[in-house]
Amino acid sequence: MNTVLSSLHIRRVGIDTWRENVAFLHRSCPVVRAAGFQALAKVTVRANGQSIAAVLNVVDDEAIVGPLELGLSEEAFDRLGVAAGRDVTVEHAEPPPSIAALHRKIAGERLSRDDLVAVMRDIAAARYSKIELAAFVVATNQFELDRDEVLHLTEAMIAVGRRIDWQHDVRGGPVVDKHCIGGIPGNRTSMLVVPIVTAHGMLCPKTSSRAITSPAGTADTMEVLAEVELPLERLQQIVRETRGCLAWGGTADLSPADDILISVERPLAIDSPGQMVASILSKKIAAGSTHLVLDIPVGPSAKVRSMPEAQRLKKLFEYVAQRLGLQLDAVITDGRQPIGRGIGPVLEAHDVMQVLANHPDAPQDLRQKSLHLAGRVIEFDPDVRGGDGWRIARDILDSGRALAQMNAIIDAQGRRGAIPDPAPLTFEVTAAADGVVIGIDNLRLARIARLAGAPQVRDAGVWLARKLGDAVRQGELLYRLHAHYDTDLSFARRMAEQGSGYRIGRAEDMPHDFARNGAAA
Amino acid sequence: MNTVLSSLHIRRVGIDTWRENVAFLHRSCPVVRAAGFQALAKVTVRANGQSIAAVLNVVDDEAIVGPLELGLSEEAFDRLGVAAGRDVTVEHAEPPPSIAALHRKIAGERLSRDDLVAVMRDIAAARYSKIELAAFVVATNQFELDRDEVLHLTEAMIAVGRRIDWQHDVRGGPVVDKHCIGGIPGNRTSMLVVPIVTAHGMLCPKTSSRAITSPAGTADTMEVLAEVELPLERLQQIVRETRGCLAWGGTADLSPADDILISVERPLAIDSPGQMVASILSKKIAAGSTHLVLDIPVGPSAKVRSMPEAQRLKKLFEYVAQRLGLQLDAVITDGRQPIGRGIGPVLEAHDVMQVLANHPDAPQDLRQKSLHLAGRVIEFDPDVRGGDGWRIARDILDSGRALAQMNAIIDAQGRRGAIPDPAPLTFEVTAAADGVVIGIDNLRLARIARLAGAPQVRDAGVWLARKLGDAVRQGELLYRLHAHYDTDLSFARRMAEQGSGYRIGRAEDMPHDFARNGAAA
Repeated sequence: MNTVLSSLHIRRVGIDTWRENVAFLHRSCPVVRAAGFQALAKVTVRANGQSIAAVLNVVDDEAIVGPLELGLSEEAFDRLGVAAGRDVTVEHAEPPPSIAALHRKIAGERLSRDDLVAVMRDIAAARYSKIELAAFVVATNQFELDRDEVLHLTEAMIAVGRRIDWQHDVRGGPVVDKHCIGGIPGNRTSMLVVPIVTAHGMLCPKTSSRAITSPAGTADTMEVLAEVELPLERLQQIVRETRGCLAWGGTADLSPADDILISVERPLAIDSPGQMVASILSKKIAAGSTHLVLDIPVGPSAKVRSMPEAQRLKKLFEYVAQRLGLQLDAVITDGRQPIGRGIGPVLEAHDVMQVLANHPDAPQDLRQKSLHLAGRVIEFDPDVRGGDGWRIARDILDSGRALAQMNAIIDAQGRRGAIPDPAPLTFEVTAAADGVVIGIDNLRLARIARLAGAPQVRDAGVWLARKLGDAVRQGELLYRLHAHYDTDLSFARRMAEQGSGYRIGRAEDMPHDFARNGAAA
Repeated sequence: MNTVLSSLHIRRVGIDTWRENVAFLHRSCPVVRAAGFQALAKVTVRANGQSIAAVLNVVDDEAIVGPLELGLSEEAFDRLGVAAGRDVTVEHAEPPPSIAALHRKIAGERLSRDDLVAVMRDIAAARYSKIELAAFVVATNQFELDRDEVLHLTEAMIAVGRRIDWQHDVRGGPVVDKHCIGGIPGNRTSMLVVPIVTAHGMLCPKTSSRAITSPAGTADTMEVLAEVELPLERLQQIVRETRGCLAWGGTADLSPADDILISVERPLAIDSPGQMVASILSKKIAAGSTHLVLDIPVGPSAKVRSMPEAQRLKKLFEYVAQRLGLQLDAVITDGRQPIGRGIGPVLEAHDVMQVLANHPDAPQDLRQKSLHLAGRVIEFDPDVRGGDGWRIARDILDSGRALAQMNAIIDAQGRRGAIPDPAPLTFEVTAAADGVVIGIDNLRLARIARLAGAPQVRDAGVWLARKLGDAVRQGELLYRLHAHYDTDLSFARRMAEQGSGYRIGRAEDMPHDFARNGAAA
């Protein structure tokens, strides 16, 4: 390196660019002039034996960076971990080592395990630009991955992150988990399954995601009750104390490449089977789970829309899980409508606590589905007879032991006080005619709840007064919007007025099977 | 809109984010808190009847933006065109109208003309994120576009930009152009073809690109001699004065969607036939050309590597051109090695001026290729007999009329003074053994020239002392590196030492055909 390159001092620039590292250089900085840097060029910043990749923004304001400074966006500054004022060097970034593999995938080739490990390593190290990430996601979506490629992708995702080992704690017993492929609003069964199965004595280190395109993720709803952003060491300590947790997965550094890929898949509405399987199973295996119950909801507005499609997806999950030594019980469930009554963090937290408290108004569909899934998890216990799981789960819930266990987990994670009331501004969506509810569109209700403010406005969302099969008279309440801000309410209301997402008809027109080719397993 | 949303004042933030619009809001801005904005959210900024889409960065430093301000990056501020301090509103961006068509293309569907016009309109209006742009490019690369889709994509690119009409100037005569598909370093034939054919009296409004991944584009080399960033009105005036120009195409707003797509295709090394055809023909038709000579170089390190591939590409160009009423003469040429001796803006400008001045040291391959192509353009003249074009072109060049015409064009665009000498720091790459030059790798020479500093350092690059078929003795010069900075020279030198890009062997081993299946048309 010549002298020009080593004469810059590092500075933290108070701009949050989220996951994208941005480096700021002044236009009259000698390095910009000498090395011919242009805005949006990819650079490598090195200091003190550390290096990070970043996108360059050129600055014309010395209040942001001076000509002899190199600024880094907040997260990039933290990631490099060097004190302000220290010397840094900057150079044009070399293409990431796996770029040739990416180009081969774009050209339609099959990638080997080594290729995929190289790609995941580069992604986890933030060496891919958003353009390159999108290219990988679209290319692997289009040339559908064969099942061995999915296996290798899953292994690669695990290989580049941390992995938790609970064997010292369970001494050969199962480490259990429960996961849903998503797409059903209000589907907060994890918050019931975890207290039930841990009350049974099983170890269940559950991590969940926040909402990206949905009105709430389990982490958002749990956050109404307790802290969820727990460092990995704290999470392990809590699980050792209470046998379970309900934490946000993003802090634990499990399958970090997947977190980055998801940030690109969601805006493109890409959810290919291969990527879904690799994403879910890599996270579970990295979290140290040995036994997993997987919920695959099927319905006309669910992610999976037909039984043959659900069966294909189930077999792909089973193939990869078996190769990786994970015991998998995939359950195909009714995904024709939201689960419970609330959609949005606070409204869903009320539903969950009502079920745990055996309240007479508690939503029965959420209770029944949770017992079903918890029963399947409990049957992983070698001492439980096949078929006894549901009864054991019900006894734990009815006896109040699940509620007590939930309170222990909340206290361990850090209790956040009483659940607030739903947001005060409301609008009521009513039936246009007499009849029976014969259809509820999951996607539309999710979109309306998001416009009302969920999940960022945690007490906003939708409260469902009627579910499938309920009789309703013209003018009676179907659901209520809750919002905190006028604009949010008017946006959500306009969407609901354009189409409520409810179909009212004759009872005999309601499809009783939730998928075209038959009922659930 | 409620009061919260309208209380922000606009501010220009002195950060150059190139083509990406960035909006800056302080973390304690009421809008961020109320509307739940997160970093990297897509927002719509409105003021004074104008609106732009932008990506949000959240700021923690009031020196950049205050809590009641909305900052815009430099280009975004200019694009919105509202004075600092004016009121603006900001809201979550709606997805671009064509997003459903993008998702259908990702899923493998064929898009209609209307779909493609909607996509190009959104891209030209900067409503696509980089992720969405990359997804479109990869999806259209993978499900190869059929020829009618290529036609519709071309029409859509034309439809969303400006279009120049020269019919008043040529009164039914041809408006000619010449274009190369690229990939051959030093291939500056346009700077000879334009003066020759305009000296013959034809109208040739030539626009060119700057280098993106190459060591120089025609616009970079022409910029050594004259201004090339000309607004559309000025460009039209120059063409009316001199019958020709050699301008940068980026300022003219011709096929603006293509400019944006290229910025994503290049880093992904995607150059699919459909995208190439739509990109080139949309720009030519938007520039008002009626007759085009197209140069398709073929060789082992050219873009097109075999004669069957060149023929398929030629037919695709011909199909789309014919449907759009453009007369096309596609010429398959020898792409086995760089053209001329210089690689890099200044070195190439020397080559061009030597040919125009009939200097005895002028590179003969550049002269011959330019005469060949200029002759084909001249034969578009209805008064010229088939076969006479080359001789007419040669007479114009030999007589000095081409040089005089080039000087007229340079003066009209704005002369920039004498051509500088090549950069002073040099390194000589020599032959490792006696023999004949039997191979020169275009890609490697381009990469070495870029490391030496080209095109940003305009006098940097490579000067070729030997070409294919030349005899050479061990230790004799193959080529010389020119650089302006020590680091540039050492990077380029290291690359050349790892592999010079030259193959030295026995004369009888040199492939005389430049493509596997035969010689040029």
